[in-house]
Amino acid sequence: MKRIAILGSTGSIGTSTLKIVESYPERFSVATMAAGSNLDLAFEQAMRWRPKVLSVAGEEAADVLRKRLVAAGAAEIEVVWGTAGTVKVSTHPEVDFVVSAIVGVAGLEATYEAVKAGKEIGLANKECLVAAGDLIIDEARRQGNPLLPIDSEHNAVHQCLRGGRAEEVERIWLTASGGPFLHAPKEAFAGITVAQALNHPTWKMGKRITIDSATLMNKGFEVIEAIRLFHLPPERTKVVVHPQSTVHSMVEYRDGSILAQISVTDMCLPILYALTWPERIASDLRFDVLSLSRLDFYPPDLDKFPCLRLAYEAVEAGGARTVALNAADEVAVAAFLQGEIPFLGIPATIQAVLNETSTRKPESIEEVLAMDQEAREQARRAIKIAAASAVQ
Amino acid sequence: MKRIAILGSTGSIGTSTLKIVESYPERFSVATMAAGSNLDLAFEQAMRWRPKVLSVAGEEAADVLRKRLVAAGAAEIEVVWGTAGTVKVSTHPEVDFVVSAIVGVAGLEATYEAVKAGKEIGLANKECLVAAGDLIIDEARRQGNPLLPIDSEHNAVHQCLRGGRAEEVERIWLTASGGPFLHAPKEAFAGITVAQALNHPTWKMGKRITIDSATLMNKGFEVIEAIRLFHLPPERTKVVVHPQSTVHSMVEYRDGSILAQISVTDMCLPILYALTWPERIASDLRFDVLSLSRLDFYPPDLDKFPCLRLAYEAVEAGGARTVALNAADEVAVAAFLQGEIPFLGIPATIQAVLNETSTRKPESIEEVLAMDQEAREQARRAIKIAAASAVQ
Repeated sequence: MKRIAILGSTGSIGTSTLKIVESYPERFSVATMAAGSNLDLAFEQAMRWRPKVLSVAGEEAADVLRKRLVAAGAAEIEVVWGTAGTVKVSTHPEVDFVVSAIVGVAGLEATYEAVKAGKEIGLANKECLVAAGDLIIDEARRQGNPLLPIDSEHNAVHQCLRGGRAEEVERIWLTASGGPFLHAPKEAFAGITVAQALNHPTWKMGKRITIDSATLMNKGFEVIEAIRLFHLPPERTKVVVHPQSTVHSMVEYRDGSILAQISVTDMCLPILYALTWPERIASDLRFDVLSLSRLDFYPPDLDKFPCLRLAYEAVEAGGARTVALNAADEVAVAAFLQGEIPFLGIPATIQAVLNETSTRKPESIEEVLAMDQEAREQARRAIKIAAASAVQ
Repeated sequence: MKRIAILGSTGSIGTSTLKIVESYPERFSVATMAAGSNLDLAFEQAMRWRPKVLSVAGEEAADVLRKRLVAAGAAEIEVVWGTAGTVKVSTHPEVDFVVSAIVGVAGLEATYEAVKAGKEIGLANKECLVAAGDLIIDEARRQGNPLLPIDSEHNAVHQCLRGGRAEEVERIWLTASGGPFLHAPKEAFAGITVAQALNHPTWKMGKRITIDSATLMNKGFEVIEAIRLFHLPPERTKVVVHPQSTVHSMVEYRDGSILAQISVTDMCLPILYALTWPERIASDLRFDVLSLSRLDFYPPDLDKFPCLRLAYEAVEAGGARTVALNAADEVAVAAFLQGEIPFLGIPATIQAVLNETSTRKPESIEEVLAMDQEAREQARRAIKIAAASAVQ
């Protein structure tokens, strides 16, 4: 029985993880949970799964939830909150495996502490690698922790890497759906609306990641994650556009062989893979090869999608740059969704922030968080300046 | 230094193997060779590679070649002939690895004896698995011999199988180019000419294998080989048509993940893989992922391509049926190339022979050869009867 901590239980990875636990009750159980702001769902999940510990974002929410649980006869569930609460969830002694799927830097410390506590980790929080990558990777390596990726692309790479040794890898190819603007002419990008950008062709996801998919920034983050997870230099970590999202990624070996992973576009599969690795267990997540039909591949257009170029530049420069890349993007995407900046204001904001960011390496999670805060403030300033000059 | 015996040195696999030896002189050397009827090329190869032993088909050819080699100053090369000669080549004490690429049953005994002698085997001779599969596989298993497949499809499967354990495999998918008649309407098949059938869209190969590709019988043989090599039942060994021949085959795991192998269509790659397994060494056989462009996949049409159906039926019935399938096909293809029977006469002939064939399992290579002879005679009779009734 693998006892799971779910960081981000009410999000899409969290609910998919619970679906898997439900399907394989003889293999998995829920030990602890950290939920986001959806308290009704958190309550429902807690009543169904009876975790030892449940963490929520704020103290007030914890009080409300604790009372509801007591009233519903689940007084034994310990309700905690904030960073300390999330760390309690991820490092609990009755936890074997941590699904790290809290969106944003909120999941950083809990994941880092879980790695230090020797827990197995299924990684779906991109900040863990984009912002605090070296810290977490170095600690995981010290622990001999395999850090199993739950992102469909990195999970695919992890699978394809089984076809050879690390030193035999020539490069990896992350596939990108290309988002809704793959075929849009460059002139159209200035006028892209929020509604257009939220209309992703293949995956249904949260708003920020949907915008990040439209700008290809999401692919840029994945490039950075891949570089760190698989210890490859940027020039050997490539992107290929593949609109059908059927091939989830590829590994090219030095003999010329390429292995590709194909499956349904359902996050349950990479989660199941991470939870059972190095085993593969039977699932009903079948992909019908006879219905594969056409698959297309193109080179990405870095001119139309400058965010992808910015990601490569940030990881090559290193240090605080990837922290700033993520923080500035989050602020810029929020501003775009609020109608404060146009679509092309997203890369412009990030570029402005990166220009001001040092390449010094953060030495601790605290330092990562401080760099993150600073980049957010810089991004807000850049957005104000841009808005002011747009008005003139 | 891996010392190689090449069975079929003058054929396409043989010459590709020599290209590899030439490219990696620090890793490979040619120990012995068995050539076919192209004596000029055999002479040239012997002068270049100076094998310890060189075998040719007949005694007379051996005498001629021996004299030419003595006159050219290569008297130290031992020239032998026939089955005994080929066995000497494959079991020579200075041989580590045998590339088994003689076309037809001529390679059977030499391969079987090489397995018994504990040599590593790179298998490109389909008769070894189609006709004498169980015998060779059983012996290889006793020896702990991995039998590395050189066919591009089986080699691809071998690579994809590294992504999981044997018991985790749900099914394998052999890709088929579909041959030149993939899109031809069923009514057109009766009138297909030899010239049309010899015009294969992607691979340049010998005549028989080109016709076998046009009838999909070649894919049928590959299904049988895969069933035996990978210990899977027929219903879990599937074919998918993929005209671009870019994905060489796939393995579907029980969790729903599919791994696919992609590479250039050059036999040097699977040969190199087999020669260096479990290592992968650097080659210039690169495939440019950014030029992948479109890939198509369809289910195979067993109605238009009855040979594929016959292969499944033969392997399901077992015993002498797969020996007869191969023998009858060879005779029928020769008759088609000679203009004696029409294109659809190929499956008709094979069907007629299979109807008369027992399902008793051969117990020795001699018995396989006897069954093979009998099926050839039956095929010739069936062709005569068909020709006689066509004349009436």
